[in-house]
Amino acid sequence: MAATSRRPIGVAVLGMGNVGTEVVRNLNDKAADLQARVGAPVELRGVAVRDLARPRGAVDSAVLTDDAEALVVRDDIDVVVELIGGIEPPRTLIRTALQAGKSVITANKALMAVHSGELSEAAAASNVDLYFEAAVAGAIPVIRPLTQSLAGDSVNRVAGIVNGTTNYILSEMDETGAAYEDVLAEAVRLGYAEADPTADVEGHDAAAKAAILASIAFHSRVTANDVYCEGISAITADDLVAAKKFDCTVKLLSICERIEADGVEKISARVYPALIPFEHPLATVNGAFNAVVVEAEDAGRLMFYGQGAGGAPTASAVLGDLVMAARNRVNGGRGPLESTYASLPIAPIDDVQTRYYVSMNVADKAGVLEQVAAEFAKRSVSIAAVRQEGAGESARLIVVTHRASDRDQSETVAAIEKMDSVIKVSSVLRLEGTND
Amino acid sequence: MAATSRRPIGVAVLGMGNVGTEVVRNLNDKAADLQARVGAPVELRGVAVRDLARPRGAVDSAVLTDDAEALVVRDDIDVVVELIGGIEPPRTLIRTALQAGKSVITANKALMAVHSGELSEAAAASNVDLYFEAAVAGAIPVIRPLTQSLAGDSVNRVAGIVNGTTNYILSEMDETGAAYEDVLAEAVRLGYAEADPTADVEGHDAAAKAAILASIAFHSRVTANDVYCEGISAITADDLVAAKKFDCTVKLLSICERIEADGVEKISARVYPALIPFEHPLATVNGAFNAVVVEAEDAGRLMFYGQGAGGAPTASAVLGDLVMAARNRVNGGRGPLESTYASLPIAPIDDVQTRYYVSMNVADKAGVLEQVAAEFAKRSVSIAAVRQEGAGESARLIVVTHRASDRDQSETVAAIEKMDSVIKVSSVLRLEGTND
Repeated sequence: MAATSRRPIGVAVLGMGNVGTEVVRNLNDKAADLQARVGAPVELRGVAVRDLARPRGAVDSAVLTDDAEALVVRDDIDVVVELIGGIEPPRTLIRTALQAGKSVITANKALMAVHSGELSEAAAASNVDLYFEAAVAGAIPVIRPLTQSLAGDSVNRVAGIVNGTTNYILSEMDETGAAYEDVLAEAVRLGYAEADPTADVEGHDAAAKAAILASIAFHSRVTANDVYCEGISAITADDLVAAKKFDCTVKLLSICERIEADGVEKISARVYPALIPFEHPLATVNGAFNAVVVEAEDAGRLMFYGQGAGGAPTASAVLGDLVMAARNRVNGGRGPLESTYASLPIAPIDDVQTRYYVSMNVADKAGVLEQVAAEFAKRSVSIAAVRQEGAGESARLIVVTHRASDRDQSETVAAIEKMDSVIKVSSVLRLEGTND
Repeated sequence: MAATSRRPIGVAVLGMGNVGTEVVRNLNDKAADLQARVGAPVELRGVAVRDLARPRGAVDSAVLTDDAEALVVRDDIDVVVELIGGIEPPRTLIRTALQAGKSVITANKALMAVHSGELSEAAAASNVDLYFEAAVAGAIPVIRPLTQSLAGDSVNRVAGIVNGTTNYILSEMDETGAAYEDVLAEAVRLGYAEADPTADVEGHDAAAKAAILASIAFHSRVTANDVYCEGISAITADDLVAAKKFDCTVKLLSICERIEADGVEKISARVYPALIPFEHPLATVNGAFNAVVVEAEDAGRLMFYGQGAGGAPTASAVLGDLVMAARNRVNGGRGPLESTYASLPIAPIDDVQTRYYVSMNVADKAGVLEQVAAEFAKRSVSIAAVRQEGAGESARLIVVTHRASDRDQSETVAAIEKMDSVIKVSSVLRLEGTND
C-alpha cells in the first residue's frame, strides 16, 4: 500500500470562463471542506488566461498567467484543470501535463471525443488520473457510474438528451407552436444558444458526447467521426404537431447501442431527432435539462437526470473529479482510464433497426396510399400507423413504420420520393423508445 | 506510485441467497470481462453457506464451506463479499476480514446503518476498501455519486423512495383503491413482501438507508437510531383518494436534509409516508422502482432512478464495487471511506419545517371549521387548503397547512383531538415536494 502524504495539492486552472470562474470560487470558498475530503490542503497555484489585463474579480493576481505551457509543467502543480475548450491548445497542454506527471481534469467533450486514446495512454504511462465527468451532461454523474458503478455489468444501450440548447428549442417549439428559426433566434438573444449555434443544432456536440458514452459503455474506442449525426434544423412546427397525434414528442437523442448485424456484435452510436412516446422517461425532460437512460444486463434500466450545462453545475462535476484526483495523489492509486479491450466494430447506420415517421405531401387522388404502402411492403417494412390529412394541394400522408433496418427504410423513402403521386417527402424522423 | 501486480484476485462470497447466486454466476460467466476491467483474473475461491448439503447449482463444491470465519482470513482471499444480511455474524466477519487486510463489499444496510463507524475504521487501519453501493437503492448508483461525483459540492437534501415493498403497496392502493391489509396480503402471496413485512412496512429498512445516505451526504455519522421513522401501516384507501383531490399521491420517503434550527446547522433524517404533488419527479416512481433526488449547492437537483431490489440488479451494484476494489488491489490506492469531519448534530423531528395534511371526522354543525382554524392560528400554523365532505355522522374535514415547525403542527393536532366537535383525527400525513 502506498504511504500517505499530507503535503498540499497544487492546482492549476486553464481558462476563466463561466466554469473556470465557478471552480476558482469554490476552491476558495470551500477550502476547509475540500481539505477534509482530500486529506490534504488543495491550493490554487495558477490560473492561465488569454488576457492578463482583464479584471478577474477575487482571483489573486499573483496566480494569473498567460503562459499555460509553463504552468502545466511547474513543479508545484499536481492537478491541471482544463476549461479552455476546443482541440488546440488543450490537446497539447493536457498531453504535456500528463507527461509531466500531473493528473488532469477536463470538461472538454470535443477533445475527449477524438483524442481520448492518446491522452489516456499518456495518463497510463505516468500512472496519473485523467477525469472528464463534466464533458457529458454537466453536473449529472454519468461517466463515473458507467465506468465504476457498472464496471461489473454489461451495458446494452445508453440513450440520452445531452444537449441543452436543442432540448430548449424543441421544448419551446412544442409548447408554443413557433417555428424553428424564431425559437432559435430567441434562444440566441436570451443566451441559451451561442451566436454560432451550429455545433449544437447540427448535433455535433451531442455526437461528441455519444462517442464518449459509447467508448466507456462498450469498452471500445469510438470517436466523434464514428457517430451518425443529424441535427434539428430541419424540424418544423408541423412535425411537433403531427408527433402529438401519435402521442409522441420530438427530442434530439444521443444513442449508443450494442447491436448484432450479420452475426457480428457491433456498436451503433448515433444522434438524431426522434419521436418518443409521451410515457417514455425522456419525454418529460424539458428545457435545459439533460437525462441519460442506461440499460444494462443485470441492473436493468437506470436513469440519471439533472442540469446539463451552466457554470455552477459543470463546476460541481469538475470539483468532484478534482477531489478524487487529489485523494489519489494523497493515498496512491488512480481511477480507471480508457478501456478498449472489447474493440467492437462500429455499425453503419444502415445496420440499425429503427422505426420511421415519414410525412409527405401527396396528390389528392385515390390510390396514393396503396402505392406508398406497396413501396414499404416491397422492402418488408411493416406499417404501424397511417394518417391522411387535408385535401387538394395540401393533402398530407403520414406513415409510421414498425422496426426494420435503416437501409430498407431509407431505400423506401428514396423510392417514394420518386413517385408521381408524391409531391414531396417533407419530413423523415425516427421513432425511438417503443418495443414494436 | 504503487507498483502494479498481475496476480489473480481471490474472492470469497458469504451467503448464497438471490444476490449471492447472481454474483457467483457473474463471476463465472463474465470472467474474461472482469479480468480485462480489473487488470488481473478475478477468481472465486470460497463461498460460505449455512447448509453444505443443499445443492448449489453450478458452484464447484470444492469452493463451498460452512466455516465463514476461516474463509475470510484465508491467505488466498483478497476481497470478501458479504451477502448474509443482519447484524451478526456479518459484523464480526467483516471486521475480521478488514483486520486481516481483505477489502470488503457488502449489501448490508442494517449493518452499515449502525456499525459503519467501527467497520470504516478497521478498513482505514488496514488501508483497504469497504464498499456498500448495493446497500441503498439496489442497482442505482447512489453511494458512489454522493461520495465521489459530488465530493466537491455541498449537498443540501436527499429525498428518495428506497423501499420497493412499500412503494409497491402504495402504488397498488392508489391504482386499485384496495385497503392496505388486502394489498399487503397479496404482496406477501406474490413474494413482493416478506412473510414478516415489519421491517419494510414500519419504515425500518427505509430508515437504515436514510441513515447511510445522511452520513455520506453530510460527512457526519448518522445511525439508524437518529432517524425519525413512521411506516405505512396506518395509511387508508381514503387517504389516497383524498390526496388525489389535492393533486397529490402518497409515497414513503426517506429524507435527509441540512436544516438550521436555533441558529445551528443540523441534520434531519426522517422516514414517513407523505403527500407529494403529481408533478414532482418522485410521484411517478411506481411499483418496485426506487428513485433518489439529490439537491446540491452547485449541481442543483439531480435524480437517480432504477430497480431498487432483486437478485440481478443488486448483484450489478455488488460487482461494480468488486471490480473497483479488485482494481485497487492491482493498482494500489483505495476509495473514500467514511467521512465524518463535519460532525453535524441531529435535529429532532420537532425542529423540522413541514406541511401537514390532517383528516378528521367532525360533528356536522356550524362553527367547527372556525374552531379548528383557531387552533392552527394559535400556533401560527397557516392553513393552505380546506375540504369539507359528507354530512351527519360521516362529516369529514381535511386541512392542508403551509410550512411550520413539526412541533407546532403536532401540538395543534393534539389540541384538535381534544375538541368536542372533533370526533376523531383519522389521519395525519406530511406534504413534501412543494415550495410553499
